[in-house]
Amino acid sequence: MREVAVIGVGLQRFGELWEMSLRDLCADVGRRAMEDAAVETVDSIVVGCMSSGLFAEQEHVGSLVADALGLTGVPATRVEAACASGGLAFRSGVAEVASGMSDVVLVIGAEKMTDVPGDRATAILATAADQEHEAFHGVTFAGLAAMVARAYMERYGATPEDLAAVAVKNHRHAALNPLAQFRNPITVEAVLESPLVADPLRVLDCAPLSDGAAAVVLCPLDMARSRARRPVVRVAGVAAATDRLALYRHPDVTRLPAIEVAGRRAFAMAKMTPADVDLAELHDAFTIMEICALEELGFADRGKGAEAARSGSTALGGELPVNVSGGLKAKGHPVGATGVSQVGELVLQLRGEAGERQVGGARVGLSENIGGIGGTAVVAILERLE
Amino acid sequence: MREVAVIGVGLQRFGELWEMSLRDLCADVGRRAMEDAAVETVDSIVVGCMSSGLFAEQEHVGSLVADALGLTGVPATRVEAACASGGLAFRSGVAEVASGMSDVVLVIGAEKMTDVPGDRATAILATAADQEHEAFHGVTFAGLAAMVARAYMERYGATPEDLAAVAVKNHRHAALNPLAQFRNPITVEAVLESPLVADPLRVLDCAPLSDGAAAVVLCPLDMARSRARRPVVRVAGVAAATDRLALYRHPDVTRLPAIEVAGRRAFAMAKMTPADVDLAELHDAFTIMEICALEELGFADRGKGAEAARSGSTALGGELPVNVSGGLKAKGHPVGATGVSQVGELVLQLRGEAGERQVGGARVGLSENIGGIGGTAVVAILERLE
Repeated sequence: MREVAVIGVGLQRFGELWEMSLRDLCADVGRRAMEDAAVETVDSIVVGCMSSGLFAEQEHVGSLVADALGLTGVPATRVEAACASGGLAFRSGVAEVASGMSDVVLVIGAEKMTDVPGDRATAILATAADQEHEAFHGVTFAGLAAMVARAYMERYGATPEDLAAVAVKNHRHAALNPLAQFRNPITVEAVLESPLVADPLRVLDCAPLSDGAAAVVLCPLDMARSRARRPVVRVAGVAAATDRLALYRHPDVTRLPAIEVAGRRAFAMAKMTPADVDLAELHDAFTIMEICALEELGFADRGKGAEAARSGSTALGGELPVNVSGGLKAKGHPVGATGVSQVGELVLQLRGEAGERQVGGARVGLSENIGGIGGTAVVAILERLE
Repeated sequence: MREVAVIGVGLQRFGELWEMSLRDLCADVGRRAMEDAAVETVDSIVVGCMSSGLFAEQEHVGSLVADALGLTGVPATRVEAACASGGLAFRSGVAEVASGMSDVVLVIGAEKMTDVPGDRATAILATAADQEHEAFHGVTFAGLAAMVARAYMERYGATPEDLAAVAVKNHRHAALNPLAQFRNPITVEAVLESPLVADPLRVLDCAPLSDGAAAVVLCPLDMARSRARRPVVRVAGVAAATDRLALYRHPDVTRLPAIEVAGRRAFAMAKMTPADVDLAELHDAFTIMEICALEELGFADRGKGAEAARSGSTALGGELPVNVSGGLKAKGHPVGATGVSQVGELVLQLRGEAGERQVGGARVGLSENIGGIGGTAVVAILERLE
């Protein structure tokens, strides 16, 4: 298997971007990433996008994006796995470079979510769950995540304050990130006083609806080395896993086993352990999800993930900084963009280009991106070469 | 690049399959393909599906399908490129095996189209066009294809009878295929008397709305050789290309250049020319599209594709049998399934297992699958090894 490097990153600020269409968002980050990589064209494009059909009545997104970038002729593939669409697009791009089918691949993640009313957006996001057995009956994603949170709190004695600490930490990080949707620091009290969405989750436990896109450029590691314009970042490991789609079929509602499986595979591919990781971008669509991810990936023992944010160990400057970008919670969560955006953040960190939120001396970064309540999980491990 | 073989095929009859959901369709063909390949599990799943979101309010199809097949944990990727979703999923599966990331990959194509009213299905299919510049203004796919047909007829003097001959041939072929949606032979007169959909295209120039799925199993060529249960079918070439998404931006409305580009790349990869091909499955969503594809792929000179069906050269027993399965026109066209179904048909033909519609001595087969009006094209070339 040919080794793969990330040589370009294109990010933009997430938010309610009413002046830009899905096409505009993708073209903007695609151009930025190609400029950052100093490439004039690419051999292939992969676009991660969850539901352009339901959000914008536009399928065939690969062709749309290739066309918008002026890259007519270049093969373009859209990949979908709900909120893990971006992470899975990254994995598909890595496979394409690794196979030798393409040398330079542009991976874009994007979602345009705020052109529909909020309740419609909630219904669209529920199509990531099992439509026939869950969504049709009215459950929302916050409702499903709340069941995980409630079960976790019952079993391990975690408190609403533990959950709130995750949001507080990630907002604090976002204040240092000029590309974050929410740069306002918040307090535990503010979280606990915010409106209930689905008990025990409150508004400030939940990632927002966002528009946005992110892009990275991949190429063979040898090619990246020979260019050597800046620190070379290699894809040490990338792996995906699925799980039972419907939450009611999970044997243990406090667990998201796809994350564990994908993490184990990615660590094996990278020949690393959790102790090797210097920073992580985890999928905190809801505060409980960051806690579960810490445990599934082996960064915390079972039931101990809830202590991490409160103790400061996952804050910038702590033992394992988590979501220094602000995470989905505060950086924003345009669902198809998230997985690619996480990888982009890691690359900036590993190159030492992350400004005020830089994790000193970061050499290995991990991203974890899930779809649904863990029906899909994708874990990537990036490493800066000396 | 590791060479890839197709070792299993799972097909089902296309039609109005109201008793089966999208999940059921995928699980059925997935099981058939794995049984045909004699594998108990797979390392990865790729699902081609255009618009489960709009047709069934169900995204996250990879996880849905892995779960339905009892393959929890296996990575699953959904690929979308409108009506080329299946062909592009096949290409993604090939890349994954070629990279070494996975050994055995199950590729499924599927679409459930008849659970919504026909006019809604037409609107959903139009999301393969440029929503902002075409679909929003009310144009349908038949409308776009009709513009291609009209321009082609004007330029080359082709007649409605030339178009009709394609439908007549493909219905004749479908009568020999027990899995075809329409097994009734039709006449040129019947086509010309059928209701106009978009002048000059009539109902019998158009592929139907269909439910259905198809699957194939891929593995490294070396592994296929060592199993040697039956003739080994290798993927000699597979390539994709994009084009400007909106038809009004095509410099020449009679051309579908993405097919030419993808074809050239696939032939180069296979080190073959059109003369090496023994049979082809071409994307005849509308009769004019089979004619254009013959020309773009180098099987006919410009303006001469229209003569092929009438002369009999593309019929079973002719020089280059095209769409012996019945094609999209008569076998049916569940859009995401089509590209995988084409590959499945080629494998059966190359193995000599195609029954009454067998092309004698077939050694090399080509499939061509497009999305939109050629915004995406995927061409695959399969070869039976001795």
